[in-house]
Amino acid sequence: MSIDLRSDTVTRPTPAMREAMFTAEVGDDVLGDDPTVLALEEKTARLFGMEAALFCTSGTMTNQLAIRTHTCPGDDVICDQLSHVYLYEGGGIAVNALASVSLAKGERGKLTPELVREHIQPDDIHKPITRLVCLENTVNKGGGCYYTVPEIAAIRQVCDEYGLKLHLDGARLFNALVETGETPESYGQLFDSISICLSKGLGCPVGSLLLGKVDFIKQSRRFRKLMGGGWRQAGFLAAAGIYALDHHINRLKLDHARARRIGQLISQLPEVEAVFPVETNIVIFQLKQNILATDYVELLAQKGILAVTFGKHLVRFVTHLDFTDEQLLSLEQKIKEGIVSQS
Amino acid sequence: MSIDLRSDTVTRPTPAMREAMFTAEVGDDVLGDDPTVLALEEKTARLFGMEAALFCTSGTMTNQLAIRTHTCPGDDVICDQLSHVYLYEGGGIAVNALASVSLAKGERGKLTPELVREHIQPDDIHKPITRLVCLENTVNKGGGCYYTVPEIAAIRQVCDEYGLKLHLDGARLFNALVETGETPESYGQLFDSISICLSKGLGCPVGSLLLGKVDFIKQSRRFRKLMGGGWRQAGFLAAAGIYALDHHINRLKLDHARARRIGQLISQLPEVEAVFPVETNIVIFQLKQNILATDYVELLAQKGILAVTFGKHLVRFVTHLDFTDEQLLSLEQKIKEGIVSQS
Amino acid sequence: MSIDLRSDTVTRPTPAMREAMFTAEVGDDVLGDDPTVLALEEKTARLFGMEAALFCTSGTMTNQLAIRTHTCPGDDVICDQLSHVYLYEGGGIAVNALASVSLAKGERGKLTPELVREHIQPDDIHKPITRLVCLENTVNKGGGCYYTVPEIAAIRQVCDEYGLKLHLDGARLFNALVETGETPESYGQLFDSISICLSKGLGCPVGSLLLGKVDFIKQSRRFRKLMGGGWRQAGFLAAAGIYALDHHINRLKLDHARARRIGQLISQLPEVEAVFPVETNIVIFQLKQNILATDYVELLAQKGILAVTFGKHLVRFVTHLDFTDEQLLSLEQKIKEGIVSQS
Amino acid sequence: MSIDLRSDTVTRPTPAMREAMFTAEVGDDVLGDDPTVLALEEKTARLFGMEAALFCTSGTMTNQLAIRTHTCPGDDVICDQLSHVYLYEGGGIAVNALASVSLAKGERGKLTPELVREHIQPDDIHKPITRLVCLENTVNKGGGCYYTVPEIAAIRQVCDEYGLKLHLDGARLFNALVETGETPESYGQLFDSISICLSKGLGCPVGSLLLGKVDFIKQSRRFRKLMGGGWRQAGFLAAAGIYALDHHINRLKLDHARARRIGQLISQLPEVEAVFPVETNIVIFQLKQNILATDYVELLAQKGILAVTFGKHLVRFVTHLDFTDEQLLSLEQKIKEGIVSQS
Repeated sequence: MSIDLRSDTVTRPTPAMREAMFTAEVGDDVLGDDPTVLALEEKTARLFGMEAALFCTSGTMTNQLAIRTHTCPGDDVICDQLSHVYLYEGGGIAVNALASVSLAKGERGKLTPELVREHIQPDDIHKPITRLVCLENTVNKGGGCYYTVPEIAAIRQVCDEYGLKLHLDGARLFNALVETGETPESYGQLFDSISICLSKGLGCPVGSLLLGKVDFIKQSRRFRKLMGGGWRQAGFLAAAGIYALDHHINRLKLDHARARRIGQLISQLPEVEAVFPVETNIVIFQLKQNILATDYVELLAQKGILAVTFGKHLVRFVTHLDFTDEQLLSLEQKIKEGIVSQS
Repeated sequence: MSIDLRSDTVTRPTPAMREAMFTAEVGDDVLGDDPTVLALEEKTARLFGMEAALFCTSGTMTNQLAIRTHTCPGDDVICDQLSHVYLYEGGGIAVNALASVSLAKGERGKLTPELVREHIQPDDIHKPITRLVCLENTVNKGGGCYYTVPEIAAIRQVCDEYGLKLHLDGARLFNALVETGETPESYGQLFDSISICLSKGLGCPVGSLLLGKVDFIKQSRRFRKLMGGGWRQAGFLAAAGIYALDHHINRLKLDHARARRIGQLISQLPEVEAVFPVETNIVIFQLKQNILATDYVELLAQKGILAVTFGKHLVRFVTHLDFTDEQLLSLEQKIKEGIVSQS
Repeated sequence: MSIDLRSDTVTRPTPAMREAMFTAEVGDDVLGDDPTVLALEEKTARLFGMEAALFCTSGTMTNQLAIRTHTCPGDDVICDQLSHVYLYEGGGIAVNALASVSLAKGERGKLTPELVREHIQPDDIHKPITRLVCLENTVNKGGGCYYTVPEIAAIRQVCDEYGLKLHLDGARLFNALVETGETPESYGQLFDSISICLSKGLGCPVGSLLLGKVDFIKQSRRFRKLMGGGWRQAGFLAAAGIYALDHHINRLKLDHARARRIGQLISQLPEVEAVFPVETNIVIFQLKQNILATDYVELLAQKGILAVTFGKHLVRFVTHLDFTDEQLLSLEQKIKEGIVSQS
Repeated sequence: MSIDLRSDTVTRPTPAMREAMFTAEVGDDVLGDDPTVLALEEKTARLFGMEAALFCTSGTMTNQLAIRTHTCPGDDVICDQLSHVYLYEGGGIAVNALASVSLAKGERGKLTPELVREHIQPDDIHKPITRLVCLENTVNKGGGCYYTVPEIAAIRQVCDEYGLKLHLDGARLFNALVETGETPESYGQLFDSISICLSKGLGCPVGSLLLGKVDFIKQSRRFRKLMGGGWRQAGFLAAAGIYALDHHINRLKLDHARARRIGQLISQLPEVEAVFPVETNIVIFQLKQNILATDYVELLAQKGILAVTFGKHLVRFVTHLDFTDEQLLSLEQKIKEGIVSQS
C-alpha cells in the first residue's frame, strides 16, 4: 500500500462520515427540496457571517462561478501568477467569464496592496476594465503559505478605493485559520465572495461552497444551472460536509505538524536543493539541477511514496486525513534509506 | 404526505441502492483513481456499444458538454422548439458553446429528416454554420412520446449527407427502450454522442453519463474540468448508477402503466380539455380556457398532489420509482372527488 | 450594364458626395481627433435627440454592439423570427453577446405588445433572463413594411413594465420616416438605442451609427475597440454621411415610387403567385410552386436584371440611389417581354 | 501647429494618395464586388507569397481574427508580456477567442525558441491547450526593435515540433524589412498568418490586411462579418493601400533616421535616464525617478510636442510620414532649450 501524498483530495470518508452520509435525509436540490443541502449552506453562511451559500461540485466550480458572476466580458481580473484560478482551472477565466488576467508576481503567490494598485488598468479603451481581485489562502503553489487578516484588510482597502470586488479562493482556508487562530467571520467581513472546499483537508468525498450576498448567490445559482452544476439528491454529500465542519477542522494541526516533520526529513536528502518553509500541510522542495522532478517522482513511486511534480525541479507532498503517524514513520524510514540510489 | 408527481427527479434511493452506495470503493476521480466511477463508465459504454463514457453531475452538463465539444463559436444547432436543450438549460447553448439555434416545429417535439433538411444553413457569411442536430428521446415537452430506431436512422442519413453531428438527449431514453424493445446498441450506432440520466426514472440521487468516441470524451472531460464538473470520490454516486442499470430499467414499465391509468382518470375531469397521448411516464393535460395552470397546480397541492405547470393551461404529472400503487389508489380517490370545487 | 436591384447597399457615391469626402478634414478617430467623425456623430445624435453616437463600419456592428452592451451572458433577446439580427448577422447574438433568442412570429416581421409579453421568460433558473427587445424598421424580410410611432410606443410600455431595454435596427429607418412623416426625435424618445445605416438608401460607401445614452456609447466604444472596429482617419467616410443626411433623405420617396411601380409590373407576370404589399423600397414576390427562386434569379440575370433569392420561392428587388428612371423603363420593357421563355 | 509624435497612426493622406482614393473604382465588398479591394488583397497576398488576404478596418481586427480563427475556446496563446495583442486590444483574446494567455518575458518583447518551449502547456485537464504563438515585429512596446528571419525560423521549428500555429502581428513589419533588407516572401513562408497595417508607417487613413491560407481567410471572413467588419464600398480605402504599398515603403528609412536623431538629442536631456536603442521609427526613453511620464508629456505639450506615456516613467515618440525635416529642426531647437524649466 503506497503512502499517497499527491494531494489532500485523495482522502476517503471515515466510517463516521460514511454513517452521516447514509443516514442523511435528502430531496431534489434543483427544486430546493434537499434539507441536508439547505442545512449545510445555512451552517456555512452563518459560520462566516455571510448572507448565503451555494453547495457545488468542486472548488473550480465555485471559483469560476464567482469570477463570472462578479465580472462582465471584457473585464480584467488581478491575481498572482501562481494562483490556482489562473494555473489550474483549464483557462476557465477566459472561457467562462471572457475576462482577461493581470498577473502579479507576489512573494510565494501572495498579493500586496502595492501589487494590486500597480495592476489596476487605466481608463483606456485599449484596456480591459479591472473589476476583481482574487486571493488564494493558503497558497497551494506557494507551498501552503498564508495571509493574515490585517494583510488582507489592507488589500480590501485598495479594492474599496477603486470599486473592485474581492474574491477568496479558500480551498485550504481552514488550514490557515487553525494556524492563525483567526475566525471565519473575520474573513466573511473582508470578501465579496469566498470559496471553501470540503474535499481537501476536511476529508469529504465531493463538494465546495460559494459564499456571498443573497443576490450574488442567486445569480451564481443561475450560472451553476447552465454549467450543469445543478444536482438532485446532493444531501448525501452535504451530510459529509456538515460532519467535516463539526469534526475535521481542528485536527488539521496534525497534518501541519506531520508536514513540518516531512520538511525536516526531506531537507537532509543530498539531492534536495531547498525546501520551501512549511507553514501548513504542503511541502514543496527543489531538487538539484541534475535531477528532473518527473524522474524523481518516479523514484519515489518505486519506494511506495506518491507525490506530484510542481515545476521542472519542484516536487510537492500534501499531508491529509488519511496520512497517519504510522505512514509518517514508514516515510521517515524510506527517506533515511535514501531515494536516489547511491552508486 | 403529498403525492409528488412533479418530476421523476424527486426519487430517493431505495435501501438496496443506499447499501450499494454505502459499501462502494472510491478514489479521486479527477486523478482517474475512482474504481466505481471507472466501472460505471465502462459498463455504460459497453451497454451502448460506444467507445467511452464520462460520469457527470447532471443531464444539463452532459448535453452542454456534447454541444460545446461538437461545435465551434458561430456554429448552428438544429433542434426542436420544444427541446430541453433549448428551453430548460438556461440559455446554455449560447453561453457555453456560443452557438446559434435553428428551431424546427416538429410534431410533439420530434424532428423528421425533412425538418432537419429545411433547417440546414446555406454556405453564406451572413449565416452560422450548421454543425449539429439534437434529438430528445423521450420528449419531455411532447408528453413523453418517443422515436423509433428507423425514424432516427432516417435523420442520421441526412446528417451523414451534410456532414452533421447527431446528439441524443436521452434523459429518459430507457423509458423509450422498455416500450419499443429496442436495444441500447442500436442507439449507440446512430449517434455521435448520447446523454443518459441516472437520476430520473432510474432513481439515482445524482448523475448523468455522456457517451461517445474516445477523443470526444477526452475533450469533454477537459471542458467538464473548466466548468467545475470534476469531482473527487464520486464513486458513491456511481455505485448507485451501477445498481440502477442492473435493477431499475425493466421496472419503468410499471411507471408507464401507472401514467396511462392517470391519463384515463384525468381525462374524465370536467375542467380538462384534453390529455396528450400517454406513451411513457409523463402525463400532460390541457385545462379549459377559463382555468390557469398556475391556479390548478395550487388546487392540486391543497389536495396533496404535487404537479408542475407546463404552459399557460398545461399541467404535467410524472410517475416514478417512489410513486406506488397505494399512492395511485389515493390519487384515483382524490381525482374522483374532483379537484375544482363545484359551487 | 446590368440593372442592379440586389440591394440598396450597391450604390456608389455621387460626384457631389465624392467631393465632400475628398475635401474632408480628418484626424485619428481612435485618439478622438477626427473632426468630421465628431461632427457626424454630433449631428446624428442631435437629429434624434439622443445623447451620443458612435460611427461604425456596418449595421451588423452597430446592432451587435447594442445587443452585447445591453445584455450579459445568459440573457435572452426577444425579436421576430424574420429579424436581421437573428437571420443575417452570422449568429452574432450568441457569439458576441452569449445571449439566447426568443423568436416571435409577427405579421411580416413586426412585433406587437402581446407578442413581446408572451415571450418574456419567467424567473426560473432553467431559463435565460429576458433583457432586450429588438425591433427592425423597416422590416427587410417583411418586404420593407414599417411600424408607426404609436405601435412602437405600445411596445415601449411593455418594456417599461418589465424593465426591458428596447433597441431599434433602423438600417432603413429613413425609408419609414419619409412615408409616415414622423420625426427622428419621436424615435429617439422611445428607444434605448438606435442603429441607422448610411450605406443603404442614403447612398454612402461605408458606415452606420449607433445612438444612445453617454454611458451606453462609452461602453459600446470599448467593445468596438476589442472587435477591431476602431478606425483612424474615418472622416472621409463620415463626410459622406454628413452629405447624405443633408441631401439623400427626402429623395427616398423616389425609390419608393419606383418600387411600387415594379410591384405592379411584377404582379402581372404569369409565373408570379403574389407580390408582398410594397410600402417602401423593397419588392418581394412569390413564384409559383414549380419555379425555384434560385433558377428565377438566374433567368433575371440573363436578362440583365440582378436580384436575390429570399426563400425557396421568394425573390427580392430593392430600389436605390443608383436605380434611375431610365433603368426603370428598361426594366419595364424586359418584364413586359417576359422573364420565363414561353415554349 | 504642434509636432505630433504620439503615433504613426496620426498621418493624413498625401495629395497623391487622396487622388488615388478619389478616382478609385468601387463596389459592394460584402457581395465581393469591389474591384479595388480585390486588387489590394491580391497584390498583398502575392507580395508575401501567401494564398489569400482580407482587408479589414484595423490591426486589432486582423490580429483578433487570426487568434479566434486559429484557436478554440479553452486554448492557450503564447505571447510576450509586452505584446500588443495582450496589452492593447481590450482583452480581446479572452473576449473574442475565449483563449488564455501564457506570457513570456522576452528581451524587449521578443520571444525566443527557448521561451516558446518553456510556455507550452503539458497535456493535463487542469491546463488550456497551447495552440498558437504570436510574434510582433517590430515590437512597439520594445521600442521598435525587430526580429530577423533566422530568429523567426528557429521559433517556427518549435511550433512545427509541437503542432502550433504561428501568427505575426506585423503592424510595423515594413519598418523591419527596410532595415534588414529581408523580403515579404521570407515572412510568408514562416507564418500561418500575418497581419500588416496600412495606417501606421505607410500613411493610409484606415486599414489592415490579414494574410493566410484560403480556408483560413474564408473562416476569418465569416468571423469578420459577425464582428461587424464587413464593409461595402471599401475600395476608397483600399486605393490608398495600393498607393502606399507602391510608394511609401522605402521612405520608412527616413523615419528611422529621424528617430535616431531624436534619440541622440533626447539622451542629452538632464531629466532623461536612458533611451532605448532606436532601431526603427520608435523612440522610448526613461525619465529620472522624480519625474512622472504623465507630467512630462504635459510639459512637452506646452512646448508644442505631442507624445504619449508608455509606463510610469517612460515616454514614447513615433516618427512618420507627416513628420518632416522642418519639424525635426524645430524639435531639435526645443529640446536644446530644455523641456523642464531650470529654476
